[in-house]
Amino acid sequence: MKIAILGTGMVGVTIGTKLVELGHEVRMGSRTATNEKAAAWVKTAGAKASAGTFEAAAAFGEVVFNCTSGSGAVEALVMAGEKNLEGKVLIDVSNPLDFSKGMPPTLFVSNTDSLAEVIQRRFPKAQVVKALNTMSCSVMVNPRLLPDTHTTFLSGNDASAKATVKALLSQFGWKREEVLDLGELSTARGTESLLPLWLRVWGATQNGTFNFKLVAAKPG
Amino acid sequence: MKIAILGTGMVGVTIGTKLVELGHEVRMGSRTATNEKAAAWVKTAGAKASAGTFEAAAAFGEVVFNCTSGSGAVEALVMAGEKNLEGKVLIDVSNPLDFSKGMPPTLFVSNTDSLAEVIQRRFPKAQVVKALNTMSCSVMVNPRLLPDTHTTFLSGNDASAKATVKALLSQFGWKREEVLDLGELSTARGTESLLPLWLRVWGATQNGTFNFKLVAAKPG
Repeated sequence: MKIAILGTGMVGVTIGTKLVELGHEVRMGSRTATNEKAAAWVKTAGAKASAGTFEAAAAFGEVVFNCTSGSGAVEALVMAGEKNLEGKVLIDVSNPLDFSKGMPPTLFVSNTDSLAEVIQRRFPKAQVVKALNTMSCSVMVNPRLLPDTHTTFLSGNDASAKATVKALLSQFGWKREEVLDLGELSTARGTESLLPLWLRVWGATQNGTFNFKLVAAKPG
Repeated sequence: MKIAILGTGMVGVTIGTKLVELGHEVRMGSRTATNEKAAAWVKTAGAKASAGTFEAAAAFGEVVFNCTSGSGAVEALVMAGEKNLEGKVLIDVSNPLDFSKGMPPTLFVSNTDSLAEVIQRRFPKAQVVKALNTMSCSVMVNPRLLPDTHTTFLSGNDASAKATVKALLSQFGWKREEVLDLGELSTARGTESLLPLWLRVWGATQNGTFNFKLVAAKPG
């Protein structure tokens, strides 16, 4: 599959690398066509990796991963071009973290809205699916890093878009029973809301390689 | 130990009943001395159970559980009396849920503050510990209801107060490794923030008897 990665940070590099390993053609997008981090990634990731502007990447991809920082997400997507997102699955991995008020960061949108919904409203013809935003990127692409099963959440308004994301998650190594579809995109308010707890667990344990597992009583 | 339960809802009744079973003397407090739900609870819970006003309960307890609805918490604690909370461990189980805007509820304080901190600022001589607010009350007092270990969080500024709460959690059946002390009381912003996700998991699974388990990679 042809996949666009928007963002050259650790999340973009980690997901991009995994997708190339899985045999996908991946184009990493950034502000300029000559981004150094993207160029370095292309060199190490191999023949199926390429780089370009946000626009070139989005035009290339059948599926688009938003791996930008939350605060830069809408601007990056505007640069990617509304037309290049039309009818495509847009997997939003970003979180609305605001680092301007000190650590730990707060959320610049929360409670009665979510960044995923902000993006969906701005790009109504994209099929936004919120996914993988509740863990470190090493865990996103390699869930078996952890010594137990654990849970990843999906939110989105389009069932076929969520099926596409589920298939990618399966390729990443997620077991079927580890993926919980929470429902429509507004449920991303829930997963984005996990960040304030995620950050405090990280602070208390000094270990960012973790995730949460849903443990439920058997019905009846 | 003499323990006050503020609130006659399901959380108060469940925790109060468990505490009596464990041999504690428990006084349930409410707005009036003649609350019907409290009276009914006293009848079933046995000789170590009693009921009274918020004030009478708080005066009685060496430890005070705030099991009121989040929106009524400060008012109930004001009725309990600042002096009756002085120097006492105040276990805040409540969540700042706002049901006035439809379902699922939003949070009336979040992100840059927490209800636990609001309470601590209003009652600076109480030793507020946020605990057990991230699950159904059936799980709070019987963690073995679930088919796996799972995690409960603590937040508070006073180490000895947190030790008191840990001892009570142990009596409830929580294993030592299931209790994660997140640090100072402001970390309650994290656990109160879990509610928006909790509510969506409940919505998606139609099963409220669940909790989250922290699964971390082994260090090194």
